[in-house]
Amino acid sequence: MGKTTLCHHLLEKDDQLAFSISATTRPPRATEVDGKDYFFVSQDEFERMKKEGELAEWAYVHGHYYGTPKRWMDEQLNRGISILLDIDVQGGTQIMRAYPGSVSIFIIPPSFKILEERLRNRGSETEEVLRLRLENALGEMDYITKYTYVVVNDTVGAAVEKMHSIVRAERLRRDRILEGITWRQLLGLDERGVKS
Amino acid sequence: MGKTTLCHHLLEKDDQLAFSISATTRPPRATEVDGKDYFFVSQDEFERMKKEGELAEWAYVHGHYYGTPKRWMDEQLNRGISILLDIDVQGGTQIMRAYPGSVSIFIIPPSFKILEERLRNRGSETEEVLRLRLENALGEMDYITKYTYVVVNDTVGAAVEKMHSIVRAERLRRDRILEGITWRQLLGLDERGVKS
Repeated sequence: MGKTTLCHHLLEKDDQLAFSISATTRPPRATEVDGKDYFFVSQDEFERMKKEGELAEWAYVHGHYYGTPKRWMDEQLNRGISILLDIDVQGGTQIMRAYPGSVSIFIIPPSFKILEERLRNRGSETEEVLRLRLENALGEMDYITKYTYVVVNDTVGAAVEKMHSIVRAERLRRDRILEGITWRQLLGLDERGVKS
Repeated sequence: MGKTTLCHHLLEKDDQLAFSISATTRPPRATEVDGKDYFFVSQDEFERMKKEGELAEWAYVHGHYYGTPKRWMDEQLNRGISILLDIDVQGGTQIMRAYPGSVSIFIIPPSFKILEERLRNRGSETEEVLRLRLENALGEMDYITKYTYVVVNDTVGAAVEKMHSIVRAERLRRDRILEGITWRQLLGLDERGVKS
Protein backbone atom coordinates (compact mmCIF):
# COMPACT_ATOMS: atom_id res chain seq x y z
CA MET A 1 0.00 0.00 0.00
CA GLY A 2 3.06 2.28 -0.21
CA LYS A 3 3.51 4.71 -3.07
CA THR A 4 5.78 2.25 -4.88
CA THR A 5 2.83 -0.18 -5.13
CA LEU A 6 0.64 2.60 -6.56
CA CYS A 7 3.33 3.45 -9.11
CA HIS A 8 3.60 -0.14 -10.33
CA HIS A 9 -0.17 -0.36 -10.83
CA LEU A 10 -0.24 2.98 -12.66
CA LEU A 11 2.50 1.79 -15.03
CA GLU A 12 0.39 -1.24 -15.96
CA LYS A 13 -2.49 1.07 -16.95
CA ASP A 14 -0.51 3.53 -19.06
CA ASP A 15 1.84 2.48 -21.86
CA GLN A 16 3.23 5.99 -22.40
CA LEU A 17 4.79 5.99 -18.93
CA ALA A 18 8.21 4.60 -18.01
CA PHE A 19 9.25 3.95 -14.44
CA SER A 20 12.33 5.75 -13.28
CA ILE A 21 15.13 3.56 -11.97
CA SER A 22 17.09 5.09 -9.11
CA ALA A 23 20.65 4.52 -8.09
CA THR A 24 20.86 3.80 -4.35
CA THR A 25 23.37 2.94 -1.65
CA ARG A 26 20.67 1.00 0.26
CA PRO A 27 21.21 -2.79 0.34
CA PRO A 28 18.66 -4.71 -1.76
CA ARG A 29 15.60 -6.25 -0.06
CA ALA A 30 14.93 -9.93 -0.71
CA THR A 31 12.61 -9.37 -3.71
CA GLU A 32 14.53 -6.53 -5.35
CA VAL A 33 16.48 -6.97 -8.57
CA ASP A 34 19.51 -4.84 -9.48
CA GLY A 35 18.96 -2.86 -12.70
CA LYS A 36 15.19 -3.36 -12.49
CA ASP A 37 14.07 -1.99 -9.12
CA TYR A 38 17.22 0.01 -8.44
CA PHE A 39 20.81 0.34 -9.50
CA PHE A 40 22.51 -0.76 -6.28
CA VAL A 41 25.77 1.18 -6.03
CA SER A 42 28.49 1.73 -3.45
CA GLN A 43 28.83 4.95 -1.46
CA ASP A 44 31.91 5.86 -3.54
CA GLU A 45 30.13 5.30 -6.85
CA PHE A 46 27.15 7.39 -5.70
CA GLU A 47 29.48 10.22 -4.64
CA ARG A 48 31.13 10.13 -8.07
CA MET A 49 27.73 10.31 -9.89
CA LYS A 50 26.69 13.25 -7.68
CA LYS A 51 29.99 15.07 -8.23
CA GLU A 52 29.92 14.59 -12.01
CA GLY A 53 26.34 15.89 -12.30
CA GLU A 54 24.92 12.59 -13.50
CA LEU A 55 21.86 12.77 -11.20
CA ALA A 56 18.63 14.65 -12.00
CA GLU A 57 17.79 14.56 -8.30
CA TRP A 58 19.15 12.88 -5.22
CA ALA A 59 18.09 12.48 -1.61
CA TYR A 60 19.30 11.05 1.68
CA VAL A 61 16.45 9.02 3.19
CA HIS A 62 16.45 6.74 6.23
CA GLY A 63 20.25 6.60 6.21
CA HIS A 64 20.74 5.86 2.50
CA TYR A 65 21.29 7.81 -0.73
CA TYR A 66 18.88 7.65 -3.68
CA GLY A 67 19.27 9.42 -7.03
CA THR A 68 17.90 9.40 -10.59
CA PRO A 69 20.40 9.14 -13.49
CA LYS A 70 19.82 12.19 -15.70
CA ARG A 71 20.91 10.70 -19.02
CA TRP A 72 18.32 7.91 -18.87
CA MET A 73 15.58 10.47 -18.07
CA ASP A 74 16.43 12.78 -20.95
CA GLU A 75 16.57 9.85 -23.39
CA GLN A 76 13.00 8.85 -22.45
CA LEU A 77 11.68 12.41 -22.62
CA ASN A 78 13.25 12.97 -26.04
CA ARG A 79 11.39 9.88 -27.27
CA GLY A 80 8.11 11.36 -26.02
CA ILE A 81 7.85 8.98 -23.08
CA SER A 82 6.78 10.37 -19.71
CA ILE A 83 8.70 9.26 -16.65
CA LEU A 84 7.14 8.22 -13.36
CA LEU A 85 9.39 9.04 -10.40
CA ASP A 86 8.76 7.36 -7.05
CA ILE A 87 10.60 9.90 -4.92
CA ASP A 88 10.31 11.73 -1.62
CA VAL A 89 9.92 15.47 -1.04
CA GLN A 90 13.65 16.23 -1.30
CA GLY A 91 13.89 14.63 -4.74
CA GLY A 92 10.47 15.98 -5.72
CA THR A 93 11.38 19.63 -5.19
CA GLN A 94 14.64 19.15 -7.16
CA ILE A 95 12.71 17.68 -10.10
CA MET A 96 10.13 20.51 -10.01
CA ARG A 97 13.00 23.03 -10.32
CA ALA A 98 14.96 21.10 -12.97
CA TYR A 99 11.89 20.13 -15.06
CA PRO A 100 9.30 22.97 -14.87
CA GLY A 101 6.85 20.95 -17.00
CA SER A 102 6.84 18.11 -14.48
CA VAL A 103 3.63 17.10 -12.69
CA SER A 104 3.72 16.59 -8.92
CA ILE A 105 1.39 14.33 -6.95
CA PHE A 106 1.57 14.17 -3.15
CA ILE A 107 0.38 10.78 -1.84
CA ILE A 108 -1.09 10.92 1.66
CA PRO A 109 -2.56 8.23 3.92
CA PRO A 110 -6.28 8.56 4.83
CA SER A 111 -5.27 9.36 8.44
CA PHE A 112 -2.28 9.41 10.75
CA LYS A 113 -3.61 6.30 12.51
CA ILE A 114 -3.67 4.35 9.27
CA LEU A 115 -0.16 5.54 8.39
CA GLU A 116 1.09 4.17 11.72
CA GLU A 117 -0.73 0.86 11.21
CA ARG A 118 0.65 0.45 7.71
CA LEU A 119 4.23 1.09 8.77
CA ARG A 120 3.80 -1.35 11.66
CA ASN A 121 2.31 -4.04 9.40
CA ARG A 122 5.35 -4.01 7.15
CA GLY A 123 6.90 -6.03 9.97
CA SER A 124 10.46 -5.67 8.82
CA GLU A 125 11.01 -2.48 10.82
CA THR A 126 12.28 -2.19 14.38
CA GLU A 127 10.38 0.13 16.76
CA GLU A 128 13.14 2.71 16.39
CA VAL A 129 12.97 2.64 12.58
CA LEU A 130 9.18 2.89 12.80
CA ARG A 131 9.39 6.00 14.99
CA LEU A 132 11.95 7.53 12.58
CA ARG A 133 9.68 6.84 9.59
CA LEU A 134 6.65 8.36 11.31
CA GLU A 135 8.55 11.51 12.25
CA ASN A 136 9.84 11.67 8.69
CA ALA A 137 6.34 11.35 7.25
CA LEU A 138 5.05 14.23 9.37
CA GLY A 139 8.07 16.38 8.54
CA GLU A 140 7.50 15.76 4.84
CA MET A 141 3.84 16.83 5.04
CA ASP A 142 4.80 20.51 5.11
CA TYR A 143 6.06 20.12 1.54
CA ILE A 144 2.48 19.43 0.41
CA THR A 145 2.07 23.12 -0.52
CA LYS A 146 4.72 22.70 -3.25
CA TYR A 147 2.72 19.95 -4.99
CA THR A 148 0.00 20.44 -7.59
CA TYR A 149 -2.10 17.35 -6.79
CA VAL A 150 -2.99 15.40 -3.65
CA VAL A 151 -4.12 11.77 -3.77
CA VAL A 152 -5.39 10.09 -0.62
CA ASN A 153 -4.11 6.51 -0.55
CA ASP A 154 -7.29 4.81 0.76
CA THR A 155 -7.47 1.78 -1.54
CA VAL A 156 -4.94 0.88 -4.23
CA GLY A 157 -7.61 0.75 -6.96
CA ALA A 158 -9.11 4.16 -6.20
CA ALA A 159 -5.75 5.86 -5.69
CA VAL A 160 -4.31 4.47 -8.95
CA GLU A 161 -7.43 5.52 -10.87
CA LYS A 162 -7.00 9.06 -9.53
CA MET A 163 -3.31 9.15 -10.47
CA HIS A 164 -4.21 7.91 -13.95
CA SER A 165 -6.80 10.69 -14.35
CA ILE A 166 -4.14 13.24 -13.44
CA VAL A 167 -1.68 11.84 -16.00
CA ARG A 168 -4.33 11.78 -18.74
CA ALA A 169 -5.61 15.27 -17.91
CA GLU A 170 -2.11 16.75 -17.90
CA ARG A 171 -1.57 15.48 -21.46
CA LEU A 172 -4.62 17.54 -22.47
CA ARG A 173 -3.34 20.89 -21.19
CA ARG A 174 -3.45 23.49 -23.93
CA ASP A 175 0.12 24.61 -23.21
CA ARG A 176 1.37 21.04 -23.84
CA ILE A 177 -0.83 20.39 -26.90
CA LEU A 178 0.00 23.71 -28.57
CA GLU A 179 3.71 23.59 -27.67
CA GLY A 180 5.50 24.77 -30.81
CA ILE A 181 2.38 24.38 -32.97
CA THR A 182 -0.54 26.72 -33.77
CA TRP A 183 -4.21 25.81 -33.79
CA ARG A 184 -4.21 26.32 -37.58
CA GLN A 185 -1.57 23.59 -37.87
CA LEU A 186 -3.55 21.40 -35.45
CA LEU A 187 -6.64 21.72 -37.70
CA GLY A 188 -4.62 21.07 -40.87
CA LEU A 189 -5.16 24.61 -42.23
CA ASP A 190 -1.48 25.51 -42.52
CA GLU A 191 0.47 23.40 -45.01
CA ARG A 192 3.81 24.35 -43.53
CA GLY A 193 2.72 22.78 -40.26
CA VAL A 194 1.54 19.37 -39.15
CA LYS A 195 -0.60 17.62 -41.76
CA SER A 196 -4.09 16.58 -40.74
CA MET B 1 -20.95 14.88 -32.38
CA GLY B 2 -21.26 18.50 -31.20
CA LYS B 3 -20.09 19.59 -27.76
CA THR B 4 -23.63 19.31 -26.40
CA THR B 5 -23.54 15.55 -27.15
CA LEU B 6 -20.20 15.25 -25.33
CA CYS B 7 -21.63 17.12 -22.34
CA HIS B 8 -24.64 14.80 -22.07
CA HIS B 9 -22.39 11.72 -22.10
CA LEU B 10 -20.07 13.23 -19.49
CA LEU B 11 -23.04 13.92 -17.19
CA GLU B 12 -24.00 10.24 -17.35
CA LYS B 13 -20.52 9.25 -16.16
CA ASP B 14 -20.23 11.69 -13.26
CA ASP B 15 -22.88 12.07 -10.56
CA GLN B 16 -21.24 15.11 -8.96
CA LEU B 17 -21.85 17.19 -12.08
CA ALA B 18 -25.03 19.12 -12.91
CA PHE B 19 -25.77 20.43 -16.37
CA SER B 20 -26.32 24.14 -16.64
CA ILE B 21 -29.63 25.23 -18.10
CA SER B 22 -29.42 28.36 -20.21
CA ALA B 23 -32.07 30.94 -20.87
CA THR B 24 -32.30 31.63 -24.61
CA THR B 25 -34.28 33.67 -27.11
CA ARG B 26 -33.73 30.98 -29.77
CA PRO B 27 -36.89 29.07 -30.77
CA PRO B 28 -36.90 25.43 -29.55
CA ARG B 29 -35.85 22.65 -31.95
CA ALA B 30 -38.24 19.71 -32.37
CA THR B 31 -36.65 17.56 -29.64
CA GLU B 32 -35.97 20.30 -27.10
CA VAL B 33 -37.96 20.64 -23.87
CA ASP B 34 -38.45 23.97 -22.08
CA GLY B 35 -37.00 23.93 -18.54
CA LYS B 36 -34.87 20.88 -19.35
CA ASP B 37 -32.73 21.75 -22.37
CA TYR B 38 -33.23 25.51 -22.12
CA PHE B 39 -35.44 28.13 -20.58
CA PHE B 40 -37.01 29.55 -23.73
CA VAL B 41 -37.67 33.24 -23.06
CA SER B 42 -38.73 36.29 -25.06
CA GLN B 43 -36.32 39.03 -26.10
CA ASP B 44 -37.89 41.34 -23.51
CA GLU B 45 -37.54 38.81 -20.68
CA PHE B 46 -33.89 38.17 -21.62
CA GLU B 47 -33.16 41.92 -21.62
CA ARG B 48 -34.72 42.19 -18.15
CA MET B 49 -32.57 39.30 -16.78
CA LYS B 50 -29.44 40.90 -18.27
CA LYS B 51 -30.30 44.35 -16.88
CA GLU B 52 -31.06 43.03 -13.39
CA GLY B 53 -27.76 41.07 -13.21
CA GLU B 54 -29.45 37.67 -13.09
CA LEU B 55 -27.06 36.11 -15.63
CA ALA B 56 -23.63 34.62 -14.78
CA GLU B 57 -22.73 34.91 -18.46
CA TRP B 58 -24.53 35.70 -21.67
CA ALA B 59 -23.69 35.61 -25.36
CA TYR B 60 -25.18 36.49 -28.73
CA VAL B 61 -24.64 33.52 -31.06
CA HIS B 62 -26.01 32.89 -34.56
CA GLY B 63 -28.60 35.64 -34.10
CA HIS B 64 -29.89 34.59 -30.67
CA TYR B 65 -29.18 35.36 -27.01
CA TYR B 66 -28.05 32.70 -24.53
CA GLY B 67 -27.38 33.21 -20.80
CA THR B 68 -26.92 31.24 -17.56
CA PRO B 69 -29.08 32.19 -14.55
CA LYS B 70 -26.68 33.05 -11.72
CA ARG B 71 -28.90 32.08 -8.77
CA TRP B 72 -29.27 28.47 -9.97
CA MET B 73 -25.48 28.20 -10.41
CA ASP B 74 -24.66 29.51 -6.95
CA GLU B 75 -27.22 27.17 -5.36
CA GLN B 76 -25.52 24.14 -6.97
CA LEU B 77 -22.02 25.30 -6.05
CA ASN B 78 -23.03 25.90 -2.41
CA ARG B 79 -24.25 22.30 -2.28
CA GLY B 80 -20.84 21.10 -3.51
CA ILE B 81 -22.12 20.22 -6.97
CA SER B 82 -19.99 21.16 -9.97
CA ILE B 83 -21.71 22.72 -12.96
CA LEU B 84 -21.08 21.78 -16.56
CA LEU B 85 -21.58 24.72 -18.90
CA ASP B 86 -22.04 24.10 -22.62
CA ILE B 87 -21.10 27.59 -23.78
CA ASP B 88 -19.16 29.36 -26.51
CA VAL B 89 -16.04 31.52 -26.15
CA GLN B 90 -17.95 34.69 -25.22
CA GLY B 91 -19.70 33.00 -22.32
CA GLY B 92 -16.57 31.02 -21.47
CA THR B 93 -14.40 34.07 -20.93
CA GLN B 94 -17.10 35.69 -18.74
CA ILE B 95 -17.29 32.58 -16.55
CA MET B 96 -13.47 32.43 -16.24
CA ARG B 97 -13.51 36.02 -14.93
CA ALA B 98 -16.55 35.60 -12.64
CA TYR B 99 -15.51 32.17 -11.28
CA PRO B 100 -11.68 32.04 -11.04
CA GLY B 101 -11.83 28.42 -9.82
CA SER B 102 -13.63 27.32 -12.98
CA VAL B 103 -12.07 24.79 -15.34
CA SER B 104 -12.06 25.53 -19.07
CA ILE B 105 -11.99 22.91 -21.83
CA PHE B 106 -11.77 23.93 -25.49
CA ILE B 107 -13.36 21.30 -27.75
CA ILE B 108 -11.89 21.21 -31.27
CA PRO B 109 -12.66 19.06 -34.30
CA PRO B 110 -9.89 16.73 -35.54
CA SER B 111 -9.53 18.91 -38.66
CA PHE B 112 -11.16 21.78 -40.49
CA LYS B 113 -12.42 19.35 -43.15
CA ILE B 114 -14.22 17.26 -40.56
CA LEU B 115 -15.73 20.36 -38.97
CA GLU B 116 -17.19 21.33 -42.37
CA GLU B 117 -18.52 17.80 -42.96
CA ARG B 118 -20.14 17.66 -39.53
CA LEU B 119 -21.89 20.99 -39.95
CA ARG B 120 -23.08 19.93 -43.40
CA ASN B 121 -24.38 16.58 -42.13
CA ARG B 122 -26.63 18.27 -39.59
CA GLY B 123 -28.82 18.91 -42.63
CA SER B 124 -31.00 21.49 -40.99
CA GLU B 125 -28.78 24.40 -42.01
CA THR B 126 -28.97 26.47 -45.16
CA GLU B 127 -25.73 27.09 -47.09
CA GLU B 128 -25.64 30.62 -45.70
CA VAL B 129 -26.04 29.45 -42.08
CA LEU B 130 -23.33 26.84 -42.72
CA ARG B 131 -20.89 29.48 -43.97
CA LEU B 132 -21.71 31.68 -40.96
CA ARG B 133 -21.07 28.81 -38.55
CA LEU B 134 -17.75 27.93 -40.20
CA GLU B 135 -16.56 31.54 -40.05
CA ASN B 136 -17.69 31.65 -36.44
CA ALA B 137 -15.80 28.46 -35.58
CA LEU B 138 -12.55 29.83 -37.03
CA GLY B 139 -13.03 33.18 -35.32
CA GLU B 140 -13.54 31.40 -32.00
CA MET B 141 -10.33 29.40 -32.37
CA ASP B 142 -8.20 32.41 -31.37
CA TYR B 143 -9.73 32.16 -27.89
CA ILE B 144 -8.03 28.77 -27.43
CA THR B 145 -5.12 30.48 -25.64
CA LYS B 146 -7.49 31.48 -22.80
CA TYR B 147 -8.43 27.86 -22.10
CA THR B 148 -6.59 25.45 -19.81
CA TYR B 149 -7.43 22.20 -21.63
CA VAL B 150 -7.92 21.15 -25.24
CA VAL B 151 -9.90 18.06 -26.20
CA VAL B 152 -9.96 16.91 -29.82
CA ASN B 153 -13.46 15.68 -30.66
CA ASP B 154 -12.49 12.62 -32.74
CA THR B 155 -14.90 10.02 -31.35
CA VAL B 156 -17.55 10.64 -28.69
CA GLY B 157 -16.21 7.87 -26.43
CA ALA B 158 -12.61 9.03 -26.47
CA ALA B 159 -13.47 12.72 -26.10
CA VAL B 160 -15.85 12.09 -23.18
CA GLU B 161 -13.24 9.91 -21.43
CA LYS B 162 -10.73 12.75 -21.76
CA MET B 163 -13.19 15.31 -20.38
CA HIS B 164 -13.94 12.97 -17.47
CA SER B 165 -10.22 12.64 -16.68
CA ILE B 166 -9.95 16.43 -16.58
CA VAL B 167 -12.92 16.73 -14.19
CA ARG B 168 -11.55 14.00 -11.90
CA ALA B 169 -8.01 15.42 -11.94
CA GLU B 170 -9.20 18.95 -11.15
CA ARG B 171 -10.92 17.64 -8.01
CA LEU B 172 -7.50 16.36 -6.86
CA ARG B 173 -5.70 19.71 -7.06
CA ARG B 174 -4.02 20.52 -3.77
CA ASP B 175 -5.44 24.05 -3.75
CA ARG B 176 -8.99 22.63 -3.93
CA ILE B 177 -8.41 19.80 -1.42
CA LEU B 178 -6.68 22.03 1.15
CA GLU B 179 -9.09 24.96 0.68
CA GLY B 180 -9.77 26.21 4.22
CA ILE B 181 -8.28 23.07 5.82
CA THR B 182 -4.73 22.14 6.86
CA TRP B 183 -3.00 18.81 6.20
CA ARG B 184 -3.09 18.15 9.97
CA GLN B 185 -6.88 18.39 9.84
CA LEU B 186 -6.92 16.20 6.73
CA LEU B 187 -4.94 13.51 8.60
CA GLY B 188 -7.13 13.78 11.73
CA LEU B 189 -4.31 15.21 13.88
CA ASP B 190 -6.07 18.44 14.84
CA GLU B 191 -9.23 18.00 16.90
CA ARG B 192 -10.50 21.47 16.13
CA GLY B 193 -10.58 20.54 12.45
CA VAL B 194 -12.20 17.86 10.36
CA LYS B 195 -12.40 14.53 12.17
CA SER B 196 -10.77 11.51 10.51
